[in-house]
Amino acid sequence: MSKNQNILIIGAGLCGSLLALRMAQRGFQVTLVEKRPDLRKIIQDAGRSINLALSDRGLRGLRIAGVEEAAKKLCIPMNGRMIHDKAGNTFLSPYSGRKNEYINSVSRPGLNMLLLDEAEKMPNVKIIFNHACENVDLENASAVFKEFNSDKEITISADVIFGTDGAGSAVRKNMYENHKFLFSFSQQWLGHGYKELEIPAAENNGYRTYKNALHIWPRGEDMLIALPNLDGSFTVTLFLPYENNDYCFANLTTPEMVHEYFNKEYPDVVEMIPNLSEEFFNNPIGPLGTVKCSPWNSFGKVLLLGDAAHAIVPFYGQGMNASFEDVVVFDEILEKYASEENINWNTILKEYESKRINDTDAIADLAVDNFHEMKEHTAMEIFQNKRKLETAFEAEFPEEYYSKYSLVTFKESISYSEAMKRGRAQDKAILNLLDDGKLTEEMSLKEKLELVKKETQAILHDDEVAFG
Amino acid sequence: MSKNQNILIIGAGLCGSLLALRMAQRGFQVTLVEKRPDLRKIIQDAGRSINLALSDRGLRGLRIAGVEEAAKKLCIPMNGRMIHDKAGNTFLSPYSGRKNEYINSVSRPGLNMLLLDEAEKMPNVKIIFNHACENVDLENASAVFKEFNSDKEITISADVIFGTDGAGSAVRKNMYENHKFLFSFSQQWLGHGYKELEIPAAENNGYRTYKNALHIWPRGEDMLIALPNLDGSFTVTLFLPYENNDYCFANLTTPEMVHEYFNKEYPDVVEMIPNLSEEFFNNPIGPLGTVKCSPWNSFGKVLLLGDAAHAIVPFYGQGMNASFEDVVVFDEILEKYASEENINWNTILKEYESKRINDTDAIADLAVDNFHEMKEHTAMEIFQNKRKLETAFEAEFPEEYYSKYSLVTFKESISYSEAMKRGRAQDKAILNLLDDGKLTEEMSLKEKLELVKKETQAILHDDEVAFG
Repeated sequence: MSKNQNILIIGAGLCGSLLALRMAQRGFQVTLVEKRPDLRKIIQDAGRSINLALSDRGLRGLRIAGVEEAAKKLCIPMNGRMIHDKAGNTFLSPYSGRKNEYINSVSRPGLNMLLLDEAEKMPNVKIIFNHACENVDLENASAVFKEFNSDKEITISADVIFGTDGAGSAVRKNMYENHKFLFSFSQQWLGHGYKELEIPAAENNGYRTYKNALHIWPRGEDMLIALPNLDGSFTVTLFLPYENNDYCFANLTTPEMVHEYFNKEYPDVVEMIPNLSEEFFNNPIGPLGTVKCSPWNSFGKVLLLGDAAHAIVPFYGQGMNASFEDVVVFDEILEKYASEENINWNTILKEYESKRINDTDAIADLAVDNFHEMKEHTAMEIFQNKRKLETAFEAEFPEEYYSKYSLVTFKESISYSEAMKRGRAQDKAILNLLDDGKLTEEMSLKEKLELVKKETQAILHDDEVAFG
Repeated sequence: MSKNQNILIIGAGLCGSLLALRMAQRGFQVTLVEKRPDLRKIIQDAGRSINLALSDRGLRGLRIAGVEEAAKKLCIPMNGRMIHDKAGNTFLSPYSGRKNEYINSVSRPGLNMLLLDEAEKMPNVKIIFNHACENVDLENASAVFKEFNSDKEITISADVIFGTDGAGSAVRKNMYENHKFLFSFSQQWLGHGYKELEIPAAENNGYRTYKNALHIWPRGEDMLIALPNLDGSFTVTLFLPYENNDYCFANLTTPEMVHEYFNKEYPDVVEMIPNLSEEFFNNPIGPLGTVKCSPWNSFGKVLLLGDAAHAIVPFYGQGMNASFEDVVVFDEILEKYASEENINWNTILKEYESKRINDTDAIADLAVDNFHEMKEHTAMEIFQNKRKLETAFEAEFPEEYYSKYSLVTFKESISYSEAMKRGRAQDKAILNLLDDGKLTEEMSLKEKLELVKKETQAILHDDEVAFG
């Protein structure tokens, strides 16, 4: 594969930085351009999602670029969901019955800085900050950027361009507006927005609530979650309907209303957030959207990856993981053609999309499903019983059973789409067996597992016959 | 309800013309603006879909405006699908086991002219042709139009605006580009395009093949269909992949290739289309897309209806029917508030969307499903056996059984979303019972029906438990 190819990567967030690093490791000449200032040199904005869940699929992406161990130093393991009821009672619902399966809370800027540092160490990577993409010539692989301070424009040409410029991608906009091919596109907004708050560290960087969990306060239509940070603080996120709810962003307009709402729904949180209403009114409301599109590649010259190709809602903790897995899948295809003399980007970009798109569609749908699971189902008895049974299966028969959550989160060897299909069938099997009273107390755990497996197979078979 | 309200309707196609007529009948002051010339005064373009399927939901819309009988004079009943195999053998698969249930082939321009004529008869309707919508002020209900010949701009203000300007709606574009609210939007293109051809009339306006059917030549990935016209001709539509198929638009580039393809796949059609390759190369390739969006209403001032709100692929024959049903649903809501002194458009527009959107989403999905059914399943034995059984149920037990097709097409008293839910469960029940050999020859038809009903209920119950 000829290494003197010039690669232009637009967007130096998590996906773009990792891709730049990996492409440089493969010997390509990489230019990485970012709209924002170098985040290593500025103070972070409040109110942007500052910690994320990192799990196996994401770690695999970091591993192939040799930065997994460095990244793990930024991580706080979360072993399960800690559910908080209105009375302040809590219980921990483990993410898996297997001891070694957990997810990690990691700082978005911290991880991004690590990746930028590593990319910058490569002699064949050039990083340009403060340049916003104005226009992409899709047919000729060149892009125009405007410098933030001076408004001066520069044009960069390349052999191939990667658009890793996030959910609001400027590269994707050029595809949407191009009329030489049919571009399927969807943006779907939830009726809920989010707002970030902070539980500050206790004295000596202590944690004000249990450190190693993702905390959830499920309340049906609304919910609060919290993820731990290394400094002892938690980043709290409120998910709330914009309107048409007893409490919603439209009516939480005064400090009194905010306190009334929190005192009623999240009394144990109120005492942990000293400046509740101040933070509430200072921080922005963020929208929650899913973006899908196709094709990701145009003219064999430009490819979308990461959120630019598939932005998802945060409820499966898979946004970053999916983006890093994009890099893994793309890298595998590059590897396949590595011995060929001439590189055929058109073939590679198309093969990547056809291998990947069903999986990113699946995780997008799973993430929306999980919103309902988190805000409603975690508080419902039948779903709690299902989780208990699955955790027991995983603890007792670790090789034989993976819940949908485990398939998606920990089983990187199977794809998101396969995880969705098997996971949904399993969920349906267990819920129906529970509802029909067919999992009786007399049965051994092994008997229950066999019955669940049999019912799952029957569901998959019936769907196959009916829907192909 | 105050009648001096000014109503601006943008788009005088089928939906806009019917809406204008109905709103005028309710006493509103209606201005109807159309981008194209008055189609009653020009010669029609070739290659645009010139006949459509009109069925019960659409007829209901025409009925409330008092034009059902006039429209029926333009109709040719089609009693079923006539399936043509490669050897030229045909068999008729009825649309229903009930004698009085059929769909109609109707001329799009013919029906549109009828509606324009009727609207124009109303003293409170003003129709303006040749004016393209340039911009809509969504917050103030005014729109700017440019005259086609002179480029002169006019601005029209109203109390409320209806965007009925079709799949490529300019009104919708204004909502998409407005950043004061979150606009969910999707456009999904099939990998297939379509091309129209014509089977001309035989001598004395005779029909070259069976008149009262929708003809289908299902070939797996590609298909041909034909609908009859009043003058003895048939409008033929080829649905073919753009690329990556043995035969596709990308490789049918010479008269020889076109004849090779048609001789191989549709030998009985070749002899009926005298100028096959000429027509093939003269007529455009049309794309096949689904558009969904939400909200349909902005600021209580502007509402999308018809294809502008929900463009669907043509495979259920429901595009026009869904648009006419929009007018029915909207009219029912107007009726509900008819006795109130002051009209609250914001309430009415919101209520309309919340009542309607699940149903138009459902028919959009059903139409894509039906593409696969038509091009593949109609040629498969298990699906043919299902249809035979369903037709027998409907003939023998007309009050007790409605197939999915009948629920969608003939059962206007239930919504599209309910028809989809019940119909899909029924399909799954029958296909699985057939596959499992549980519908035996010894059973009476009544016993089979009872088993199908029981299995359908079990499927609906299991889905309810698992997915709520």
